[in-house]
Amino acid sequence: MVEIINTGSELLIGRTLNTHQQWLCRRLSDLGYTVGRQTAVPDTADAIAQATTESLSRAELVIVTGGLGPTSDDLTRDRIAALVGVPLVEDPAVVAHIEAFFTARKRVTPARTRVQAQVPQGARVLTNSHGTAPGLALKISPNPFHRDRTTSWLILLPGPPRELRPMFDTEVVPLLQHELPVAGGYLATTFKTTGLGESLVEERVADPLAQLVHAGLELGYCARVSEVEVRLAARGADGPRLVETAARIVQETLGPLIFSQNGNDLETVVVRTLTRLRRTLVVAESCTGGLLGHRITNVPGASAVFLGGWITYSNAAKVRDLGVPPATIDADGAVSEAVANEMAAGARRTSGADYALAITGIAGPSGGSEAKPVGTAFVALATSAGAKARRVLHPYDRETFKFATSQYALDMLRRELLRETREESPG
Amino acid sequence: MVEIINTGSELLIGRTLNTHQQWLCRRLSDLGYTVGRQTAVPDTADAIAQATTESLSRAELVIVTGGLGPTSDDLTRDRIAALVGVPLVEDPAVVAHIEAFFTARKRVTPARTRVQAQVPQGARVLTNSHGTAPGLALKISPNPFHRDRTTSWLILLPGPPRELRPMFDTEVVPLLQHELPVAGGYLATTFKTTGLGESLVEERVADPLAQLVHAGLELGYCARVSEVEVRLAARGADGPRLVETAARIVQETLGPLIFSQNGNDLETVVVRTLTRLRRTLVVAESCTGGLLGHRITNVPGASAVFLGGWITYSNAAKVRDLGVPPATIDADGAVSEAVANEMAAGARRTSGADYALAITGIAGPSGGSEAKPVGTAFVALATSAGAKARRVLHPYDRETFKFATSQYALDMLRRELLRETREESPG
Repeated sequence: MVEIINTGSELLIGRTLNTHQQWLCRRLSDLGYTVGRQTAVPDTADAIAQATTESLSRAELVIVTGGLGPTSDDLTRDRIAALVGVPLVEDPAVVAHIEAFFTARKRVTPARTRVQAQVPQGARVLTNSHGTAPGLALKISPNPFHRDRTTSWLILLPGPPRELRPMFDTEVVPLLQHELPVAGGYLATTFKTTGLGESLVEERVADPLAQLVHAGLELGYCARVSEVEVRLAARGADGPRLVETAARIVQETLGPLIFSQNGNDLETVVVRTLTRLRRTLVVAESCTGGLLGHRITNVPGASAVFLGGWITYSNAAKVRDLGVPPATIDADGAVSEAVANEMAAGARRTSGADYALAITGIAGPSGGSEAKPVGTAFVALATSAGAKARRVLHPYDRETFKFATSQYALDMLRRELLRETREESPG
Repeated sequence: MVEIINTGSELLIGRTLNTHQQWLCRRLSDLGYTVGRQTAVPDTADAIAQATTESLSRAELVIVTGGLGPTSDDLTRDRIAALVGVPLVEDPAVVAHIEAFFTARKRVTPARTRVQAQVPQGARVLTNSHGTAPGLALKISPNPFHRDRTTSWLILLPGPPRELRPMFDTEVVPLLQHELPVAGGYLATTFKTTGLGESLVEERVADPLAQLVHAGLELGYCARVSEVEVRLAARGADGPRLVETAARIVQETLGPLIFSQNGNDLETVVVRTLTRLRRTLVVAESCTGGLLGHRITNVPGASAVFLGGWITYSNAAKVRDLGVPPATIDADGAVSEAVANEMAAGARRTSGADYALAITGIAGPSGGSEAKPVGTAFVALATSAGAKARRVLHPYDRETFKFATSQYALDMLRRELLRETREESPG
């Protein structure tokens, strides 16, 4: 069992969002480790030592984040060394690393940073490629705090995510795989889907997978806004067969609802597919106000396929920039199937792009009506075959509505690209 | 002392980000309560009961989130009632609330939800305006788990944020202020600033505030991307005077770097100021790809001032939509002061808006050069007096770069509006 301790007074006054928890828990569970508890404490030596002692009484692996910077670490370092019952010694390799770090930045090494080279005797030093504070791994054998007096590992990681994450991947994972291997092996795979709610996804796959679950397959779901993850995992010698069989069933059952396996978000899938097919895209956004373009341009390399777009928040902009006929707006309203189609067609025509996505809707909190309540949107995709709009309803708060609607738009394009690719290469 | 327990197996396999922690910690600390520890455990009755017992041994107030939904709560409910030593009884008001909830949605009340009306005898029921699971507040007097056998409160809140947050504000806060008032009073105020790094903000205010800190003022900083918060707080009878004096000093020292006190983000400040002044805005975005428009349209009521914008990711779009002369792009490059100015001027001219913000830059990871490295951007603001561009450098990852650059653009406009308002009403 693994426990995580996040140290930092800023966590407990709510000034910082704890992203370490999710990141570490996800990495660890995908490697097959079970995290039994996570604790956040202020970064005082007392609080850290107390929480560490408690976690060591339960867990074989305790990971502590933060609390080892140059300003706050003096006492913590002492207390951790005392807890383990060894003295602090200066590690010459760490001294050299710190000096090289500052030399490379043409700065004098601040005197305070030297304390970071003080490590509990016998600890393994984990190299910090992005900062000065090294990570530390301590083997506690026997562990005096644990009922069974088994061996436990205590791993201390630096607080900044850009230092912690690469250190975990390059230094901690190999150590865990060598020193604390998951008994009998572990395999996990995750499918991301969109277009169906969690309970409906569950309804489709639960039955076909029931026998495999009975045989030891771990099956989990995780719902986010307009996205449901299906996670398959199994332990032991039979694990790979179970996961592979289950993965085939999930792929057959959910088919095109799946947009990625093991990682990519929807915008990345869309940009990569467009890149592979050498097609171009523009967007015309009303109620999403730029979010669709923002998501697309978060993907490195988007400029190869994304030509740009229009944020036509006002009716005047829809008419002027996209050539939407004022009569259509008058007749059907700005939030309508006809206007969505005109927006998409106009964006495609003006830009010469292969595809245009258009969105018009009512984000709220005001502006809704009986016929078109808050959360209503029309999403259109224009291709060489013309424009086709769909009506969707996401009656959530403003930001959730915007995300769900942009997700729907991206998925319309993904499904279109899927269809075209299949038609091009039948069989 | 307060402790928070977040329940949910999805937290410990890293499928969900724990946003409750930050939200609750922030609210509680602004009310003057000290959160000493936060713990996340799986949503099994054993784990929840164990963590609750431990927290009750240390804290006067324990807040548990999640674990009371219709599917997982049966055992938890039993265990919590057993822990407190009272039986579960059905609360008729909760039964009625659940039935009304489903009737309003034209749905039959699922049999399972009825279990949510089972509450520990003597518990106060906290109304859930956005769901069926009520919150519960239990006064434990004396608290058998605490060394001092003092009175403790155990408060159980529903898991979904849209249910938890309003319930905390409308039900929990009044209860705390009545039952667990902060001894001697507490006052806190927070300034949000942009335009200066954390260490420089600290350098400016630390000295002038030193005496007040000595007299008991709590002074804290929190740095985010392109934003530094300065938080002032104090307890006791002298607290209000300390905080008010310190606030005046901070306002004098940081002046226009401050964009809000106690809450609003930069986009909200900009939209509200434009609304008050009855001015309109358009945006022309290249490297930020729509983020600026997205942020502006996250603010309810943005449509009164935001006319829309252009995502001119390609050079062709810059020329076609904004009238940027191709010769300017050829001479200076798409990422240049001249092009930023032309984009802003073109956007303002075409739209007839009062202000236009334009951004062109290099988000990376590729596309940089010696003269214009990755992270370089030009941000221009066009007003009736013409367009003026500034060069900025945010050499971070793609998303951080986009946010920091959009923050800079919003702040350019905020500073311009501040200047204009001052000129209009001198003295």
